[in-house]
Amino acid sequence: MIMNETIIISHGSGGKQTHDLIHSIFFPAFNNPELNREGDAAILDISGVKLAFTTDSFVVKPIFFPGGDIGKLAVAGTVNDLAVSGAKPLYLSCGFILHEGFSIEKLKKITLSMKQFADECGVRIVTGDTKVVERNSNDELFINSAGIGLIHKNAPRGKEFFQEGDAVIVTGTVGDHGAAIFSVRENMGFDTEILSDCASVYPLAEIALEHSENIRIMRDPTRGGVAAVLNEFIENTPFGIEIVERVIPVRNDVKTICEILGFDPLHLACEGRMVIVLSQAEAVSLVEKFRKTELGKGSAIIGSIRAGSKGLVSMKTIAGGERVVDSPSGELLPRIC
Amino acid sequence: MIMNETIIISHGSGGKQTHDLIHSIFFPAFNNPELNREGDAAILDISGVKLAFTTDSFVVKPIFFPGGDIGKLAVAGTVNDLAVSGAKPLYLSCGFILHEGFSIEKLKKITLSMKQFADECGVRIVTGDTKVVERNSNDELFINSAGIGLIHKNAPRGKEFFQEGDAVIVTGTVGDHGAAIFSVRENMGFDTEILSDCASVYPLAEIALEHSENIRIMRDPTRGGVAAVLNEFIENTPFGIEIVERVIPVRNDVKTICEILGFDPLHLACEGRMVIVLSQAEAVSLVEKFRKTELGKGSAIIGSIRAGSKGLVSMKTIAGGERVVDSPSGELLPRIC
Repeated sequence: MIMNETIIISHGSGGKQTHDLIHSIFFPAFNNPELNREGDAAILDISGVKLAFTTDSFVVKPIFFPGGDIGKLAVAGTVNDLAVSGAKPLYLSCGFILHEGFSIEKLKKITLSMKQFADECGVRIVTGDTKVVERNSNDELFINSAGIGLIHKNAPRGKEFFQEGDAVIVTGTVGDHGAAIFSVRENMGFDTEILSDCASVYPLAEIALEHSENIRIMRDPTRGGVAAVLNEFIENTPFGIEIVERVIPVRNDVKTICEILGFDPLHLACEGRMVIVLSQAEAVSLVEKFRKTELGKGSAIIGSIRAGSKGLVSMKTIAGGERVVDSPSGELLPRIC
Repeated sequence: MIMNETIIISHGSGGKQTHDLIHSIFFPAFNNPELNREGDAAILDISGVKLAFTTDSFVVKPIFFPGGDIGKLAVAGTVNDLAVSGAKPLYLSCGFILHEGFSIEKLKKITLSMKQFADECGVRIVTGDTKVVERNSNDELFINSAGIGLIHKNAPRGKEFFQEGDAVIVTGTVGDHGAAIFSVRENMGFDTEILSDCASVYPLAEIALEHSENIRIMRDPTRGGVAAVLNEFIENTPFGIEIVERVIPVRNDVKTICEILGFDPLHLACEGRMVIVLSQAEAVSLVEKFRKTELGKGSAIIGSIRAGSKGLVSMKTIAGGERVVDSPSGELLPRIC
């Protein structure tokens, strides 16, 4: 990364530029044994107790959207980062950066939404901080949430345990959050409202952790969508991934938005889904369990780990062809979370 | 707090308005047994291990200042919140909110400063997040850091253990950080540069924790300064505090700035000091130990806990009078940390 460059919006979009920034600036600077280089949380051993520790800032616009708000998202995002690390989410912090002029009534609404959703998730918001910055025509508030969780004995073993033929599961429809934000932001006026999938994935993560000692990896596909997650999975492995378009769950209205705007649903953020890799046999029985739950009823095996296509995520299309599924690049949809 | 109000700058200044916002919005909303209502960190028991957990966001302007930068401050602030809670700081998270157009070279400088200072403090930055928001003429970046520390067996017992005659210690000169920020922001052109006191207080906290099983309370006087901390100490207690102006350590150039601008040094932020309450006898010997260290060489007993003046912080002035030391109110100095 050239040092006279400046930050551009796509450095925050979760795709290639974010990846480059992290790998060229943050990883070399912060280098240490516990640094969370892969996955969504650092794994710490404190006096013999294994904990996951993670952080996420939220700058979504608009701050209220169908299916949630920035506060609910801040809780869900951090809870989910802990859950996919194989940890039971326990405690959250919450740092508010408020812009002068922000409505105290809205602030109250957002904090109550956080508390209500934290209760649903079984986590406690235990510490916080508030800063105020000058009025800005654009921004209302930013929220950071960091979280601590207790690692499960069956926490994912890591991508180094990938085997050819391992199955790739998604736990529900893809791209709902991204499409929800886009439809309200652009005032697209669809008849039916697209709801964000914003939810805690921990109930499904717990089912998975109880189901198998051999989960390879779990991840929540937020910024950059399923495409970014799959590409990260195979990075630094000898494998590729092949997915099958026909079996990828996508809502019809999300498909429509994507067709109109030329988006790929695999690039759109989810905020209540997981992508999981484990053996085919265990995946089949896990998807059966997921489908019996409300949150996981849309679960599907969408593809598998492939040898002989190192570093490549490819998709068998409905039209009968095959195409590369790349990480999103550039400013697909800024400020989505 | 009336619900049609909006956020004003002084809600973030650490004085009365911040206190009101926290007590009227955040505490009622987030109510739970572990919620950090007093002190600088939540105290958690996870599988029998006692941890401190805290968070702080940093929005200081300018981002580089004499004696530090926003990155060093983000590490120091969170390390110090853990230290004064009686915890050994172990792990930090780090969430960047970058404004489009921010220089990648500056970002690199700041991350290296964080790493270097984290190494000095013996803590590891183990997890992070990056978001990018649209260009803003004013702001460059915000940093949130959350932290985890391991509670010491002699962690402070709490203000409910205050006894009449207990001593109040400060570990060095008061108001240096606030004065440093102000002097560069206002371009005051003093001959000598005022350096921020930005530092980890953990080495002194550790001396204190090893020195006494009966520390009542420790706090780092950041936003709102020593005045805000002393007023928080006596809140909901039957006591007052009397301090003696003559013995409060204040740098001459900080005094000069305060005289010119009509500020009270007790209202200016420190970023490398502690205020500690413990028995007179133990305080005298602790200050002796502190004074043998570079960081604590300016330590002094500045006053004591008093019965018969419930809820009042008063100061014997050099002029021979007595005045009330109130928490700062209004926009003393926004964006100081």
